Amino acid sequence: MTTRTTFLGLGAMGSALAAAALDAGRPSVVWNRTPGRARALGERGATVAETADKAITDDGVIVVCLFDHQSVRAVLDPFAADLAGRTVINLTTTTPNQARGLATWAAEHGITYLDGAIMAVPEMIGHPDAAVFYSGPEAAFEENRELFDLWGRSDYFGADPGMASLRDMAMLVGMYTMFAGFLHGAAMVGAAGVSAAEFARRQTPFLAAMTGQLAGLAATVDAEDYGGAGQQSLEFTEAALASLVTASLDQGVNVEVLRPVLDVVRRQIAAGYGGQGTARIFEELRKSR
Amino acid sequence: MTTRTTFLGLGAMGSALAAAALDAGRPSVVWNRTPGRARALGERGATVAETADKAITDDGVIVVCLFDHQSVRAVLDPFAADLAGRTVINLTTTTPNQARGLATWAAEHGITYLDGAIMAVPEMIGHPDAAVFYSGPEAAFEENRELFDLWGRSDYFGADPGMASLRDMAMLVGMYTMFAGFLHGAAMVGAAGVSAAEFARRQTPFLAAMTGQLAGLAATVDAEDYGGAGQQSLEFTEAALASLVTASLDQGVNVEVLRPVLDVVRRQIAAGYGGQGTARIFEELRKSR
Ligand SMILES: NC(=O)c1ccc[n+]([C@@H]2O[C@H](COP(=O)([O-])OP(=O)(O)OC[C@H]3O[C@@H](n4cnc5c(N)ncnc54)[C@H](OP(=O)(O)O)[C@@H]3O)[C@@H](O)[C@H]2O)c1
Ligand SMILES: NC(=O)c1ccc[n+]([C@@H]2O[C@H](COP(=O)([O-])OP(=O)(O)OC[C@H]3O[C@@H](n4cnc5c(N)ncnc54)[C@H](OP(=O)(O)O)[C@@H]3O)[C@@H](O)[C@H]2O)c1
Repeated sequence: MTTRTTFLGLGAMGSALAAAALDAGRPSVVWNRTPGRARALGERGATVAETADKAITDDGVIVVCLFDHQSVRAVLDPFAADLAGRTVINLTTTTPNQARGLATWAAEHGITYLDGAIMAVPEMIGHPDAAVFYSGPEAAFEENRELFDLWGRSDYFGADPGMASLRDMAMLVGMYTMFAGFLHGAAMVGAAGVSAAEFARRQTPFLAAMTGQLAGLAATVDAEDYGGAGQQSLEFTEAALASLVTASLDQGVNVEVLRPVLDVVRRQIAAGYGGQGTARIFEELRKSR
Repeated sequence: MTTRTTFLGLGAMGSALAAAALDAGRPSVVWNRTPGRARALGERGATVAETADKAITDDGVIVVCLFDHQSVRAVLDPFAADLAGRTVINLTTTTPNQARGLATWAAEHGITYLDGAIMAVPEMIGHPDAAVFYSGPEAAFEENRELFDLWGRSDYFGADPGMASLRDMAMLVGMYTMFAGFLHGAAMVGAAGVSAAEFARRQTPFLAAMTGQLAGLAATVDAEDYGGAGQQSLEFTEAALASLVTASLDQGVNVEVLRPVLDVVRRQIAAGYGGQGTARIFEELRKSR
C-alpha cells in the first residue's frame, strides 16, 4: 500500500497545496468541512474522505490548512488519540505562541508537530517565488522536504515551533506599514489632483531602492553603535517627519499612521540621543508599552 | 563677463551642488554664514564672497540651499530689493505651503522663484540615481536644465511652487513607515535571538518584491473599485494585523507604529466595508482627523 498524504482543509490555500502534491503524482486523501470544495481535487485523482478521521489512513503525514488556531483544535481534538505516532504539519496561520500551544497539545497526544507559515498567495504555490517557513523537530522537516519543495522554497528555522510564525509575522509588519505609508502618500498628492497610479510609478522604484538601506540600519542595531559616522541623525529625521506631518495636515490628510513614527523619534531625542542615528527607533520599539 | 552661478549655503548639500557645477567648469560664486565651509570650494575655483549680498554678482541664477524656510528668509530678506528681476532656485527643504509662501514673497519683490526638492544624499549628487524635483515657472526650469542635469535626474512638476515639495514628501512617508516597520520586525525576531542583519537579508528582497503590489493598490484607488475581484479583503487584513499585534506584544515589542494601521482597517470594517479590498485604507487616510 502506497503511503498517502492527508490534507485537512481545502480552502484556497489548502486546495493549492493538495493540487501541487497531486500534480507531482503523490497519492493524497483530502477532506474539507464543506464537502463541495473537495470535488475538484477528487477529479484530479485525490481520494475524498467524508470525515476528517477517515482521511487519516496509513502512515503518511497529515497536512492541516484551516482558518485559524481554533479551527485546527476543533478538527483534530475529536480523534487526537488516533494521531499518536503520526506527524501533523500545520500550515494554518497562527501566532508564535499559538503554534507553541499546538505543539504542547500534540506532545501530550504523542503526535509529532511541525509548524509552517506560508509566504505566498495560493496562485504562487508551486512557483519558485513562493516560500514556506518551518519550525519544530528537524527530522520531521528533513523527512518531508520532497513534499515541501513542491510548494516553493522551504526554509527551516529551528526546533522552537513558534519560529516559523514569528519569522513570517516579522516580515509582514514592514509590508503593511509600507502599504499604509504608500496610501498616505497617495492621499497627499491625491489632494493636489495627482493620480495614485502616477504616484505609484515613482514610489515603486524609490521604495525598492530604499530597501537597500535596511542592511545598514540592521548593522547599526546589531553593533548598538548608534553614534557611528554616516548615520542620519534622529534630529534630522525629527525635522523631516515633522515637515511630513505638517504637509499632510495642510493637504487634509489623516496622519495617524505617520505621527507615531515621529512620536517614537521624539522620545529618543528627549532621552538624550538626538545626535545619534535614526536606527535608534529600534530601541524604542523593542520595549513594550 | 561670464555669467556666474551664485550658491548661498554650503552645508553638506549646498557644497555638493556647488562642487558639481565647478567640476563642470561653471564659474561660481559661493557664500556660507560660517566662512570656513567655503574654503574647499574656493580651492576648487569658486569665488568666495564674504557676505550673501556680495555673492549676488552678475545676472546668473541664485541657488539657495540652507537649513530651512526661516533661514532662507533670514538670508534673503536684507537685500530682497537687489534681487528684483533675478531668478532664485531654492533647494532648501520646505513644506509645500512654505514653498508657496516663499513664491509669494518673491513675487512681491519681483523675483522669479523656482522651488526644488532633492531626492538624494549629498554623496549621490552628480550620479544618475540622484533626482531633483522642481516646480514653479516652467521657463525658469527649462532655462536652467543644463545646470540641473549636473546634479542628477531633473523632474518638473508644474507651475504650483508647492508641488516639488509635495511630491518629495509624499515619497518619504512610505520610506519612513517602511523603515519603522522593518525595525519593528527586527525587534520581534530580536527578542527570540535573531540578529537584525539576518532578518534584513530576508526582509530586503521580500519588501522589494512587495513594492510590486503598489501599482495594483493604486489602480484600485483611482478606479474607486474596492469591490473588484482578486483583492485582499479588509477582514483578511484585520485578522492578519491583529495577529501581528498579538505576536508583537507576546514578544514584548511596542506596537505603537503598527496598531494605527489596524485601527484604520477596523474603522473601515465598522463602516461596512469588511468584504472590500484593503486599498480602502486610502479612504480613511484621505480625510484628516
Ligand atoms: N490565502 C492566502 O493568501 C494565504 C496566505 C498565507 C497563509 N494563508 C493561511 O492559510 C490558511 C487557510 O487560508 P485560505 O486562504 O485557504 O482560507 P479559506 O479559503 O477561507 O479556507 C478556510 C478553510 O478553513 C476551514 N474551516 C474554517 N473553520 C473551520 C472549522 N471550525 N472547522 C473545520 N474547518 C474549518 C474552511 O472550511 P469550509 O470550506 O467548510 O468553510 C476552509 O477549508 C489560513 O490560516 C490563512 O491565514 C493563506
Ligand atoms: N543632507 C541631505 O541628505 C539632504 C537631502 C535632501 C535635502 N536636504 C536639504 O538640504 C538643505 C541643506 O541640508 P544640508 O545637509 O546641507 O544641511 P547642513 O549641512 O546642516 O547645512 C545647513 C546650512 O544652512 C546654513 N544655515 C542654517 N541656518 C542659517 C541661518 N539662519 N542663516 C544663514 N545660514 C544658515 C548653515 O550655515 P552654517 O554653516 O553657518 O551653519 C549651512 O550652510 C536642508 O533643507 C535639507 O533638508 C538635505
